[in-house]
Amino acid sequence: MKIVFVGAGNLATNVARALKDAGHEITQVYSRTQASADALASQVGAEAVSDLDDVAREADIYIVSVKDGALSDVVARLCDGSRRGLFVHTAGSIPMSIFDGHAGRYGVFYPMQSFSKQRQVDFTDVSIFVEARYESDLRLLTDLGSSLSQHVMQLDSEGRKHLHLAAVFACNFVNHCYDLASEVLDRYDIPFSSMLPLIDETARKVHSMSPKSAQTGPAIRYDENVIGMQSRMLAYDDRIRQIYDIMSKSIHERNEK
Amino acid sequence: MKIVFVGAGNLATNVARALKDAGHEITQVYSRTQASADALASQVGAEAVSDLDDVAREADIYIVSVKDGALSDVVARLCDGSRRGLFVHTAGSIPMSIFDGHAGRYGVFYPMQSFSKQRQVDFTDVSIFVEARYESDLRLLTDLGSSLSQHVMQLDSEGRKHLHLAAVFACNFVNHCYDLASEVLDRYDIPFSSMLPLIDETARKVHSMSPKSAQTGPAIRYDENVIGMQSRMLAYDDRIRQIYDIMSKSIHERNEK
Repeated sequence: MKIVFVGAGNLATNVARALKDAGHEITQVYSRTQASADALASQVGAEAVSDLDDVAREADIYIVSVKDGALSDVVARLCDGSRRGLFVHTAGSIPMSIFDGHAGRYGVFYPMQSFSKQRQVDFTDVSIFVEARYESDLRLLTDLGSSLSQHVMQLDSEGRKHLHLAAVFACNFVNHCYDLASEVLDRYDIPFSSMLPLIDETARKVHSMSPKSAQTGPAIRYDENVIGMQSRMLAYDDRIRQIYDIMSKSIHERNEK
Repeated sequence: MKIVFVGAGNLATNVARALKDAGHEITQVYSRTQASADALASQVGAEAVSDLDDVAREADIYIVSVKDGALSDVVARLCDGSRRGLFVHTAGSIPMSIFDGHAGRYGVFYPMQSFSKQRQVDFTDVSIFVEARYESDLRLLTDLGSSLSQHVMQLDSEGRKHLHLAAVFACNFVNHCYDLASEVLDRYDIPFSSMLPLIDETARKVHSMSPKSAQTGPAIRYDENVIGMQSRMLAYDDRIRQIYDIMSKSIHERNEK
């Protein structure tokens, strides 16, 4: 099976390397910028191209992994009738129907994980959600996913949309909270690494307790003096202070429910 | 050394059990409610009391671990001149000076971790921050901390206040983000456990990357369509929608910095 990657970002880089390691053949990598295409292509032994017109016509699967906002343009140009094969995108919040009227065979291949180019994710534990227009392509995508992970599940576009929204809270917003902690620490030259045991335990706790029952801190105890003082400590930056106030209020309200 | 715990909450429970395991003698546990006092006292072989007047007069260390808002009242009643020994509290954001004019020997013993009664924390990796009025008591608290953890550090009240504020972001707000994810998933009967690989990887990433460089998701890519759609999906609940909007905006602004 010849696989082409359209896009060479964080997700594409991790998936392409994992597929290559699992013995699949990546024939080509497209990216808008030649340097990005080169960087990923060289890691997986593929050809690098930076013009959509140069994307191969005879591939079996096109894995389209570009910025969500660019996806419909790329789909329209890529699926111009000159290419057969199976087209899939990798976006949590974009419905499969974005391919309607453009491609014949299409689907979605969504690995739910936080990917960075600098770090190769171990796919064994990654949940991969697949969807396809045709039953035979669903089996093909399930097999492809199963070569990477034991957790391959079918999920329609509506379900995936909700899953992705939850993932934004559990991962993207969580990481931003880490980042805000590092902003606070930077002002007092305390190294971020001092937070790591706390961060690890906070993540471990929700393996055996619900997040609601695992909640600790001044907001859940409703220590108004501490909450007021901490809020005032952040008066130097409206953005971070607003987040402090709204999160504290939300924790308290959730506890009252 | 005879240790008395004043308070039997999440932190007191974890610290008392760890001290007991490290061979220390816990003689008494006070809690406002007899049942809480009984629950912890029975685990560490101590006497349980629920009247502050009954707290022993001859202990070596009093570890005061009550709700921050109750601390000054408890200190005033406990340190009434009838008790000697060393008084310490365990609160991140309360200055040591809360004991001024009440006790002679006093200090702070602050283990920076998220504690729940149902879960015994392994103290080996927990950072413990100590402070004391007298040098000899600082050594005593350092030794006490070192019997639990390799990471015992001196930190004054001002530094501890900032550390605690960062910990609120890195732990309490992070856990609340997990909880908001679980609220989203509950509405669609998707189990929270589906988030665990993502949660674990998000925590692991910041061991080797800064949170700023580890950031992923629609807000950092500035996928306006996805951000707008996800915000609208939360229209059923102002609280959670407001958090979504403000966090997305903050991630985007932080990236522009």
